[in-house]
Amino acid sequence: MNLLLLEDADFVAADRVVLQGRRLKHLHEVHRAEAGDSLRVGRLGGLMGSGSIETLSAEQADIRVSFDQPPPAKLPLTLLLALPRPKMLRRVLQTVSAMGVPRLVLLNSYRVEKSFWQTPFLEPAAIREQLILGLEQARDTVLPEVVIEKRFKPFVEDRLPQLAAGTRGLVGHPGDFPACPRALSEPVTLAIGPEGGWIPYEVEKLHEAGLQPVQLGERILRVETAVSALLARLF
Amino acid sequence: MNLLLLEDADFVAADRVVLQGRRLKHLHEVHRAEAGDSLRVGRLGGLMGSGSIETLSAEQADIRVSFDQPPPAKLPLTLLLALPRPKMLRRVLQTVSAMGVPRLVLLNSYRVEKSFWQTPFLEPAAIREQLILGLEQARDTVLPEVVIEKRFKPFVEDRLPQLAAGTRGLVGHPGDFPACPRALSEPVTLAIGPEGGWIPYEVEKLHEAGLQPVQLGERILRVETAVSALLARLF
Repeated sequence: MNLLLLEDADFVAADRVVLQGRRLKHLHEVHRAEAGDSLRVGRLGGLMGSGSIETLSAEQADIRVSFDQPPPAKLPLTLLLALPRPKMLRRVLQTVSAMGVPRLVLLNSYRVEKSFWQTPFLEPAAIREQLILGLEQARDTVLPEVVIEKRFKPFVEDRLPQLAAGTRGLVGHPGDFPACPRALSEPVTLAIGPEGGWIPYEVEKLHEAGLQPVQLGERILRVETAVSALLARLF
Repeated sequence: MNLLLLEDADFVAADRVVLQGRRLKHLHEVHRAEAGDSLRVGRLGGLMGSGSIETLSAEQADIRVSFDQPPPAKLPLTLLLALPRPKMLRRVLQTVSAMGVPRLVLLNSYRVEKSFWQTPFLEPAAIREQLILGLEQARDTVLPEVVIEKRFKPFVEDRLPQLAAGTRGLVGHPGDFPACPRALSEPVTLAIGPEGGWIPYEVEKLHEAGLQPVQLGERILRVETAVSALLARLF
């Protein structure tokens, strides 16, 4: 938790918050905070600034806060991701949030196991929890938008062309394709496949919607590693 | 397991292996393999090729193998990493191995908790297990070398200057430093700090040993994410 992220319900006055629960526990156990300590704070969806701990007990922390700094810029990116297995999903949500992806589409693919769609980690509160952890890690205040698309074809045929319009469309896919471009400043729509990759039909449909296949070398990376590697290369 | 990685003890003839244990279980449960299936194989430290399953039972698999292809090139890199917390260490070892890092130094730092050095995940067999998983993931056959340096100062003063000689030396560190360079072809020595970052004294000592601080933006990334992002940016 490199940023104490505050929500509306935490505020008891414009410049004062009261914390309990997970964040209080973290202040005690990880930060080993004491009254008088100052720490970085951010208001969910708003500015960042600093907080000064006025009182701290096992039950609650009272913190005086002020905000003066905008959160870091997001990447100019829409990321389409074939739904990863549940354990990986949680980590990928944190990574996506930490790296500044503003919009994530979790998409079906032939190689996504049907059971993955049943995971409780896809419930809105569970997704939000992981996104918040990513924001706290990276020091950001703005939640990414997450869209769930359980059917590949209608999404790719009906909605993707508009979503990708005016952007550089890319599909990460191993094989004899151009290398992933570097240091782009234009907006990008990037699709990353499941473990085992997109099937050729899917690559073709994504291509028809305006996304060009690009590769990142002959090594097959786990989804989480591929996400951070592709984003670091692109921007 | 995108590559079935074979060790000397698996071979019953030059072109024939017998498998039991973890890899057999994986063939059954994940690959749902059957006799007659072919699969990608690699010989640890050697070539890659293909295998054909001749017989398959709950007890063992007999596979005919041939080798004709070199493993993918490694990155021209020595990676110094402040020892991560044990759970993260295991994932980072897989990532490092999968991304083709040939040499990893696990290093002490002021912000590395002393207890991290006690983890059983640092035992040679445990390290090797994670490195093997990374090779199987990425389709590589050559284990990275892992060096453990429990004392920062003697390593950085006495051994790092020679290790970094003739390479581009870099320290990943947030702050007012030049951006991490892109698409290098020269050899690199890269140091990545612990959660919370190197302390100024450490940055200074690394600098004296020939490593220049570079930053990857204002977002603070988890170690595993920082490793894959920095490597994808550098090479």
